[in-house]
Amino acid sequence: MSIEKNSEPQAALAYGGSSMTAERLQTRMDLKTKPLGALGALEALAVRIGLALESECPRFVHPTVLVFAADHGITAEGVSAYPADVTVQMVRNFLAGGAAINVLARQHGLRLTIIDAGLSSELPAQEGLIDRAVARSTRNCRLEPAMTAAQCRQALDAGREIARATIQDGANAVLLGEMGIGNTAASALLLHRLTGWPLADCVGRGTGVSDEGLARKRQVLESASNRRPDAMNPLDTLAEFGGFEIAMLTGAILETTQRRCVTVMDGFSVSVAVVMAQALGSPRLDRCVFSHCSDERAHRRLLAHLGVKPLLDLGLRLGEASGAALAWPLIDSAARLLSDMASFESAGVSNRADG
Amino acid sequence: MSIEKNSEPQAALAYGGSSMTAERLQTRMDLKTKPLGALGALEALAVRIGLALESECPRFVHPTVLVFAADHGITAEGVSAYPADVTVQMVRNFLAGGAAINVLARQHGLRLTIIDAGLSSELPAQEGLIDRAVARSTRNCRLEPAMTAAQCRQALDAGREIARATIQDGANAVLLGEMGIGNTAASALLLHRLTGWPLADCVGRGTGVSDEGLARKRQVLESASNRRPDAMNPLDTLAEFGGFEIAMLTGAILETTQRRCVTVMDGFSVSVAVVMAQALGSPRLDRCVFSHCSDERAHRRLLAHLGVKPLLDLGLRLGEASGAALAWPLIDSAARLLSDMASFESAGVSNRADG
Repeated sequence: MSIEKNSEPQAALAYGGSSMTAERLQTRMDLKTKPLGALGALEALAVRIGLALESECPRFVHPTVLVFAADHGITAEGVSAYPADVTVQMVRNFLAGGAAINVLARQHGLRLTIIDAGLSSELPAQEGLIDRAVARSTRNCRLEPAMTAAQCRQALDAGREIARATIQDGANAVLLGEMGIGNTAASALLLHRLTGWPLADCVGRGTGVSDEGLARKRQVLESASNRRPDAMNPLDTLAEFGGFEIAMLTGAILETTQRRCVTVMDGFSVSVAVVMAQALGSPRLDRCVFSHCSDERAHRRLLAHLGVKPLLDLGLRLGEASGAALAWPLIDSAARLLSDMASFESAGVSNRADG
Repeated sequence: MSIEKNSEPQAALAYGGSSMTAERLQTRMDLKTKPLGALGALEALAVRIGLALESECPRFVHPTVLVFAADHGITAEGVSAYPADVTVQMVRNFLAGGAAINVLARQHGLRLTIIDAGLSSELPAQEGLIDRAVARSTRNCRLEPAMTAAQCRQALDAGREIARATIQDGANAVLLGEMGIGNTAASALLLHRLTGWPLADCVGRGTGVSDEGLARKRQVLESASNRRPDAMNPLDTLAEFGGFEIAMLTGAILETTQRRCVTVMDGFSVSVAVVMAQALGSPRLDRCVFSHCSDERAHRRLLAHLGVKPLLDLGLRLGEASGAALAWPLIDSAARLLSDMASFESAGVSNRADG
């Protein structure tokens, strides 16, 4: 790999011309001291990592967690089990090091950056926080568009820029997550409008609303959707019903997946951003890892729709990139096994007779 | 926790008198800055770890991988895709640091000990290898008992002793794995005789035999089982059809699960050793973690039979504790999340209105 190749976006985009092939990587894996295929799903993962990083001996450098955080006007309708203040409070918790993602990032040596994509109140500038707030919360999409078209473009661009800067800072793995009370409501609306699935099927319990709360959430979102029953293009849909963090995630996905980089997706809202990215561009999903299937209602169907298999299925529904961080060691393992294991020949181990 | 309590087996056995309760640990988890239950399966896991280690702030110390390795006389019947020599060759590979388990142990900072439970040839004494070989391979159980009753007891005792020494060396987590060409054949016979499930349902492809190889393996094992069609007690069954590494694993399980320790189980053969341990004693499965559901035919049914849910389901079928090591970071995460996350109160985050 030449350094020059990595320094320019255009060159990075062009690296489909790489001589690395899946066959070459699979052959390398097949010659490792283990029965053929014995590492199961990690073998195909290792091959995809090798392709994404263009290396037979892939090694992750500066894996970085990006947590995009924003507030949602729709919370005024009582769609969450937690008050809207919790978004900012949790961002403070991230910055103080007390949240799940902090524990996991410390455990695995992951860089952690929090992006204020549109929190309801401004936080003092500090290490680990990037302020790209588009506005202080979206508007209530039951009553009016969540954001303007210009705000939507601004958020998409910010996501792209932050992702680009992360990779330019040396990261070849980016773990994407979000924080935003009310964002499963926005995600459900986007998913409904992008896929045509019945809205009720897209709406889940988020942070854990009761049966009554879920019924209310569905009603509120039906009302929001009915305000604009006309078909809309994806960009208009994102502006109408989206969130700033979801728009930034979409931009980030469109950027990282064009680079020599592995992108690790967290839960439901990040997966919805992937569907949005597909509607707006051509994200290379072969360079992505879907870390887990969450407990949020539509997530399993959404992952199947994307044609991807998550690594974990543990009933997680926390967000903040926690699922991505939990799955990270498995992804790192896949790379290390491909890079570091001895071959039958180098270890002097007999291969199978028919191998 | 008093040090004295840990220094004597009898005292360790008595620690059911600990004041730590699942309720107390769950309450601690519920007050962490996350929606109730949002960490899914990791919450119950964290509670079990807290109970096993008798601590509200559990922390793993010196997690240690024990790989029990032995050869099997039944390989003379052609039940494996690989030649029997591969057992010793792979042990050499472990000791040279080239195998999957080495890569994973280095990644996660796990201690790694290989136990010669009965390899066909003796290896020079060296760091990381414990020679407790009962004999140079079991006998061919299609023709005669795999081991004598005395050998079986010797292997069980050795497993207990090695586990005890590992915990006395400071480990409060033990990851159990095996290496032995032909040992899925022995495991299948044991599982069949212990559970009464049809033998054909217990026999899988092991390292990956072809359809033809699988048919042959079944035929050979039917023949072995028919040599002693009479009902036998578990100890006789183990001697008749078992392997030295399976017997040592059984002993190790009976020991670790009585201690202030978390035991992490690898794949099929280790799970069969758990069933054997249940037949011989009362292993506390609540102190165990089943790391993964492997691709070996009977493993999923076996895990269901044990009433346990594995952490990973990635189609692994390598053995050598690789699945346990791959799952290890998740187990460590569960402990760290319980120990290190901020509470709503300490972080100044609003809890849910109805919480």
